[in-house]
Amino acid sequence: MIVAMTTSAQAETRTLRFQSAYPASSTIYMSAETWAKRVEELSGGRLKIEFMPAGTIVPAFEVLDAVNKNVIDGGHSTVAYWVGKHRAGTLFGDAAGGPFGMDILDYVGWLYEGGGIELYRDYYRVELKTNIEVIPSVTSANQALGWFARPVESWADLKGRKCRQTGVTAEVFASSGMSTVNMPGGEIVPAGERGVIECAEFVGPAEDMGIGFQTIWKHFYPMSTHNPATIVDFLVNGDIWNSLAPDLQAIMQAAASEATLRSHIRKGKLDADALDKMRNEDGVTVHRTPDDVLQNILASWDEIAKKESENNAFFKKVYDSQRDYASKVVPAKRLIQAPYNLGADHYWPEAK
Amino acid sequence: MIVAMTTSAQAETRTLRFQSAYPASSTIYMSAETWAKRVEELSGGRLKIEFMPAGTIVPAFEVLDAVNKNVIDGGHSTVAYWVGKHRAGTLFGDAAGGPFGMDILDYVGWLYEGGGIELYRDYYRVELKTNIEVIPSVTSANQALGWFARPVESWADLKGRKCRQTGVTAEVFASSGMSTVNMPGGEIVPAGERGVIECAEFVGPAEDMGIGFQTIWKHFYPMSTHNPATIVDFLVNGDIWNSLAPDLQAIMQAAASEATLRSHIRKGKLDADALDKMRNEDGVTVHRTPDDVLQNILASWDEIAKKESENNAFFKKVYDSQRDYASKVVPAKRLIQAPYNLGADHYWPEAK
Repeated sequence: MIVAMTTSAQAETRTLRFQSAYPASSTIYMSAETWAKRVEELSGGRLKIEFMPAGTIVPAFEVLDAVNKNVIDGGHSTVAYWVGKHRAGTLFGDAAGGPFGMDILDYVGWLYEGGGIELYRDYYRVELKTNIEVIPSVTSANQALGWFARPVESWADLKGRKCRQTGVTAEVFASSGMSTVNMPGGEIVPAGERGVIECAEFVGPAEDMGIGFQTIWKHFYPMSTHNPATIVDFLVNGDIWNSLAPDLQAIMQAAASEATLRSHIRKGKLDADALDKMRNEDGVTVHRTPDDVLQNILASWDEIAKKESENNAFFKKVYDSQRDYASKVVPAKRLIQAPYNLGADHYWPEAK
Repeated sequence: MIVAMTTSAQAETRTLRFQSAYPASSTIYMSAETWAKRVEELSGGRLKIEFMPAGTIVPAFEVLDAVNKNVIDGGHSTVAYWVGKHRAGTLFGDAAGGPFGMDILDYVGWLYEGGGIELYRDYYRVELKTNIEVIPSVTSANQALGWFARPVESWADLKGRKCRQTGVTAEVFASSGMSTVNMPGGEIVPAGERGVIECAEFVGPAEDMGIGFQTIWKHFYPMSTHNPATIVDFLVNGDIWNSLAPDLQAIMQAAASEATLRSHIRKGKLDADALDKMRNEDGVTVHRTPDDVLQNILASWDEIAKKESENNAFFKKVYDSQRDYASKVVPAKRLIQAPYNLGADHYWPEAK
């Protein structure tokens, strides 16, 4: 039911039905659920979000259409899922290198200080022709290189391995000679058990262990450059969005910015605990990813992005905007911020 | 459709008077002012913050007492100003190394995932014996090593230089043999003009240029390890805080978390622009800080913190809590997050 509210919504109570593209066991889902509770708290109960896991009303990959048609009022998903509809989607939090060397904070900087949020809205409204308001939310950065049956010596050593990979990331790794196959998160462990795949990329230490990767593969590589600034989004049906009073719209946005910060630090703690557990309880060897792999991921992505820019005007527009912003903040931050390893090595020298 | 209101404050409009310890020209002040406007927006106008610069009602260094006595309802300041009252204050966002290698995100992680916020409250309520609620807010990380009349070759090369330094940071640098002198931000440029000091640490590129450092000194060192996780706070009189409805309290907190994220990315952009301007328009040479200086800052701080821990039980309690949290997340993040320079050098190779 859509209720016209032209002035103050303070006397009314609204309930919006949101469905996630993630299962309830996912840390990304849990952080988004925290956002929903926070919206209710900030609005003094005037706005309730009924937050549901993937599949409750529609399958995960149908969240976009369901929000657009107002089958649900809102969704929680990743733009990576819509890359099949329009490849510029990969630039919104899912691209290698940030892109252009941006970390998660630089990428959020591009969104709010570099014009990115307007392009993000255009992606949904103009390019995908949906009636949707987008709110960037929870992060899942930095994503891990992944889990392997055998150690990885170099980029060339990825050749011939059959790995679970998704979207444009699959294309990045395919250029090494890796054989990639896509499948939903829940099918990865069974496929590993049957030997259909010998490696997999999903999210990172805590999220991956939640679905049992450590029972199949014993070599884990936490560091990568293929998804350093991943961020998922809330999608709100445009008519629903326009029917909300300005303070309720602002509450949804502010709570989402809070969730970006809080989900990132929570992931940091959960991942630290997960690394500890996989080493000490699950017999997993945690490896430093070879620099050669980190650099070739960027080079492979550069080729893909260059080709895409030649054939896709909106992709080029977004990519150029990111290059322009990164050209200012990345070289400056390299001068301003001391290397993380300097302090880490001073206080926590690695065992030789 | 119309339901009974659960909180009595919803029908009222409150105005709270907040005074900052920063001048209106400061980027830290401007980010805090954005928070005040956001609180009004999120509350649909039910809570207004009248936000005033330093000196409007009381001098900057009297903000704490003024909030405690409810001369003003709230304040905006840095815990570094209260180190003279209790030295554990330096551990709340103002310590070298983060501490223990924590960057700004790790430090915020310690606050919200590692029990830091409870210790922060105890600092004000139990240790300083004030009736104050603290809300961590805007960051000014990473702070720069500063501005110098002559280039800095090494830690030993700081010996004998007379520099403006504050609080525990002054003690850290004094161990190099530097001669330190404290003065308010507004007196730094006149003192430099008269040759009373030959170097100064204040905040960072944009903030420092706002008060004219580039007109006095031509050698700038943006990188340091002495304040990598600085964060300032809002102080609210405890009786005022308790009189606010839960949704208004939550709004002040959520808007502050949003401000932490947004102020950090805004500082990143402003600092990048400032570095560009100082090099191209003001004839300033921007130097990479020698590793020797970065490491000796940590070693000097370690000595100070060790001594303080032996004589100050609350300092030790906070410092031990930070060590425990950092021992988990810092070594893990070193494995998870690719070095910033790897992507930066790939996309923005430095001119040889």
